[in-house]
Amino acid sequence: MGMPMELNTMIVTKGNEERVGENEFALKKSGYRLYPLDIPIDIRTTKEGESRGRAIIKKIEWSKETTFLTYEFISLNSTN
Amino acid sequence: MGMPMELNTMIVTKGNEERVGENEFALKKSGYRLYPLDIPIDIRTTKEGESRGRAIIKKIEWSKETTFLTYEFISLNSTN
Amino acid sequence: MGMPMELNTMIVTKGNEERVGENEFALKKSGYRLYPLDIPIDIRTTKEGESRGRAIIKKIEWSKETTFLTYEFISLNSTN
Amino acid sequence: MGMPMELNTMIVTKGNEERVGENEFALKKSGYRLYPLDIPIDIRTTKEGESRGRAIIKKIEWSKETTFLTYEFISLNSTN
Repeated sequence: MGMPMELNTMIVTKGNEERVGENEFALKKSGYRLYPLDIPIDIRTTKEGESRGRAIIKKIEWSKETTFLTYEFISLNSTN
Repeated sequence: MGMPMELNTMIVTKGNEERVGENEFALKKSGYRLYPLDIPIDIRTTKEGESRGRAIIKKIEWSKETTFLTYEFISLNSTN
Repeated sequence: MGMPMELNTMIVTKGNEERVGENEFALKKSGYRLYPLDIPIDIRTTKEGESRGRAIIKKIEWSKETTFLTYEFISLNSTN
Repeated sequence: MGMPMELNTMIVTKGNEERVGENEFALKKSGYRLYPLDIPIDIRTTKEGESRGRAIIKKIEWSKETTFLTYEFISLNSTN
């Protein structure tokens, strides 16, 4: 009894994002993953790679052991 | 910095659920609320009220400081 | 990148609890497990077993991929 | 019913940390705050301030609506 999940502090796209608006992207990840919404977080292509900037997650959907994210890319500057 | 959320161990409907399938219901709750998916949990009309049975959450969606649940009502028996 | 954890809605002791006060017990579980504190939750010896009553978690400590709980056993009645 | 908590992706010390070892610090924060353990995260003095480097949380303790962190300061370089 208990639901496995993963706490995440950054978005790692692995190049799987799909553009769904001007600066808005959708990304599907396996398992239930918890990210903060509405807060700028780091975004990378690979976890060991360099930061590509900052993004704000607008929506998280959990279903069938899958996480669907919608995020807005906001900045190339990873330090703000 | 930090995302407020609430950890929940049961579904409290306050009578706001909408039937969306034979045993399937949709429910909207304010704020970001974390519930376990895919596991039978208690369901009540009010938090102080009696258990109405067990339900399994099939989908959680978080967006705009709101939590949208889709759950299946599975049992009138709260002890399993 | 990401921290695996498990969301739990009840305490399953597997008989490993240690009494540390009149109604207070300590329990060690593997991995990082998230439980609600300060709220009555169900307590069982095995996850398929019957409820033994209700307990309130007073402290959670996470370290070295282990979760240490301190809880107070409050009631034999699992419905409140 | 439900436990309020806050999801955090960085450590904000507000200068309240206490040194407890060579590179190890203790920090007390109000409320139940969830951070990733065992993973390098950003550390700042104020949330709007600049990154002071990276730290790894070694222990989190939740009790009496308070979060106690023990972390190791690992790097002045915020990009790794």
